Amino acid sequence: MKIDSFITWEPDLTDLSKERKSKPREIGCTMVMDKGLGLTAFEDLCQLSGEYIDFLKLGFGTAAITPQPILQKKLNHAQKHYIHLYPGGTFFEIAWMQKYFSKYINHLCKLGFSWVEISDGTISISDSDRSSCIQYARSEGLQVLTEVGKKKSGSVLSVSEVLKIYEQDLQAGASFVIMEGRETGKNIGMFDREGKINTTYLSELQKVLTPSLVIWEAPQKDQQVELFERFGVQTNLGNIAPHDVLSVESLRRGLRSDTLSWWT
Amino acid sequence: MKIDSFITWEPDLTDLSKERKSKPREIGCTMVMDKGLGLTAFEDLCQLSGEYIDFLKLGFGTAAITPQPILQKKLNHAQKHYIHLYPGGTFFEIAWMQKYFSKYINHLCKLGFSWVEISDGTISISDSDRSSCIQYARSEGLQVLTEVGKKKSGSVLSVSEVLKIYEQDLQAGASFVIMEGRETGKNIGMFDREGKINTTYLSELQKVLTPSLVIWEAPQKDQQVELFERFGVQTNLGNIAPHDVLSVESLRRGLRSDTLSWWT
Amino acid sequence: MKIDSFITWEPDLTDLSKERKSKPREIGCTMVMDKGLGLTAFEDLCQLSGEYIDFLKLGFGTAAITPQPILQKKLNHAQKHYIHLYPGGTFFEIAWMQKYFSKYINHLCKLGFSWVEISDGTISISDSDRSSCIQYARSEGLQVLTEVGKKKSGSVLSVSEVLKIYEQDLQAGASFVIMEGRETGKNIGMFDREGKINTTYLSELQKVLTPSLVIWEAPQKDQQVELFERFGVQTNLGNIAPHDVLSVESLRRGLRSDTLSWWT
Repeated sequence: MKIDSFITWEPDLTDLSKERKSKPREIGCTMVMDKGLGLTAFEDLCQLSGEYIDFLKLGFGTAAITPQPILQKKLNHAQKHYIHLYPGGTFFEIAWMQKYFSKYINHLCKLGFSWVEISDGTISISDSDRSSCIQYARSEGLQVLTEVGKKKSGSVLSVSEVLKIYEQDLQAGASFVIMEGRETGKNIGMFDREGKINTTYLSELQKVLTPSLVIWEAPQKDQQVELFERFGVQTNLGNIAPHDVLSVESLRRGLRSDTLSWWT
Repeated sequence: MKIDSFITWEPDLTDLSKERKSKPREIGCTMVMDKGLGLTAFEDLCQLSGEYIDFLKLGFGTAAITPQPILQKKLNHAQKHYIHLYPGGTFFEIAWMQKYFSKYINHLCKLGFSWVEISDGTISISDSDRSSCIQYARSEGLQVLTEVGKKKSGSVLSVSEVLKIYEQDLQAGASFVIMEGRETGKNIGMFDREGKINTTYLSELQKVLTPSLVIWEAPQKDQQVELFERFGVQTNLGNIAPHDVLSVESLRRGLRSDTLSWWT
Repeated sequence: MKIDSFITWEPDLTDLSKERKSKPREIGCTMVMDKGLGLTAFEDLCQLSGEYIDFLKLGFGTAAITPQPILQKKLNHAQKHYIHLYPGGTFFEIAWMQKYFSKYINHLCKLGFSWVEISDGTISISDSDRSSCIQYARSEGLQVLTEVGKKKSGSVLSVSEVLKIYEQDLQAGASFVIMEGRETGKNIGMFDREGKINTTYLSELQKVLTPSLVIWEAPQKDQQVELFERFGVQTNLGNIAPHDVLSVESLRRGLRSDTLSWWT
């Protein structure tokens, strides 16, 4: 072993990492699910790994039961770190069902949100209403993420259904379309009961979707690795647990065993 | 879509939430398991979701190895948020085995605890001794939770055994009887190896127990949903992980996909 | 029940606990995996359970993407609590592949690390190079942990392979040899897909290894219990999640149901 032949620390490490853009990014985004971080934990997360988080979702309808002073501070803190904080789609769905959608949008604007999620994971909504919602949110100054897929266990949309909604949503003004994976990544969409990806289904999606416009909800490590290997390290991933942000970023950069082979 | 027809934000959201009482509550209680929260994390939790937490259990015998200044601060902080902090039943069982039960009770009182758990998940204790313990704790000014069920994997008590202990405990002065589910909610009591509820068994329990006097240890989401659907949103749940408090409260209020249908 | 016959609180509890040495310890060590704790969470953990943590591993290559001021503060804080902080072996493997191993060691020294992990979980490295690495790290003033085992799912080394590497590593100057278990403790080394221990394999290892020189990565509770029962409460355990430190310490001291029987 020739100790003397080693070169410097920094250039090599960044060799693989240089593909990673710094924020604000439009590709290689990581969306994290906050299902109840306390304020200190939230700030702690931003301080440690804010550079690796693009979107932060307040899961389910938790935004509605978060004390407003804490919500306000989370918003301020996220902004400071260039993280897009937004309420989960379920909150939109409740607003829609209750017929106060425009109030919902206006309330989000007033609180200081700049992104909203439009989805129909639990409710039914017509294509034209869905597009109107996206357009209305845009007209009020919000950017829009939509989500495709039903939340009921075992639900899978056909590739043509996914494609139809995806195209409509983008045309109506959505910036990203999220593929439903829920909190667990199991028994939903392209994931089986253990979380294994249905690769045939994914391959068909791959033929018709533009990867940079999709955020894949993929909470499990093996799912993340498979998506990175298929679509590259700039794949947008969602529903990442707060404690997994550094793990996902390590995977992206070949800094974890599962992707170390990328260096060779 | 008629944008103008939407009504205000607040009344609708509280429409379903109005069933939820504010603290101190005697029904609809949530008991959280703290198996090692640091002091900041503990305060963070209380600040974010203290309104949704009624009981906080220091899991297993962790109270014994928590540095006393931290324990004292947790107690003060819990009190400030009207949360009943108490040591897990295992700690009682050790005290019982070691024959220092009355010292245990007196020490808890001195530290400032106002609730204690009496259980026999691991040890054996005669019916009369169990009742004496409850009575002694009450006589010293503590309120009592008891737990029914053995902790050994696969253990299930017959419905008549559960009923017998339940009645004895209440008669001796217990305020609530906890149904054992352990930290995982798997392969214990009414839960099978995957955590599915044995609904036949549960139905039989349902016939004989008064729901408001029972706390169901149910750490998994599907268990929580099933119990809410059967006993209503005021069901007392236990062994909720700290990071799941907002999720459970969302479920109670129809703010998560799994219970959103309650709105319709 | 004779209330008067109870003796004092403290002596009894420490009766079983007295086997536990206080830090710095050379046996009964607990190694925790930090895969992305924020600074406050890190300090919180040290404050609550620093007495029960001997080693803290910055998992995978996360040390490389942790903002340096935070890394520096973690190092200082760990030192204050007599906790050995060190970067995961994967970071070494990248350094080795990139041929900047000596820079890696020197950088760690400069930052203030005093331990390093040498492993080949993902890369290949010759026996003599491995020993040279250990010796070089020692010559630069670091103490060395090595790890035995491949990270690929389903990998198992034969007992004789394990023994060969174990002996070489110790001879080259390693203080402890870690048995690979990954973050999950599933489908790796002696663990099957559910995390059950292959007891025949473990028994063979037991015949040839000196327990005090081994750290077993065993993130699951049942694994921890089985190792404690086989090797005693002074078994060195690794890959403990931060939120499980008090649980593991409770198990060691007979303060959790699963080990309560040790008192009798």
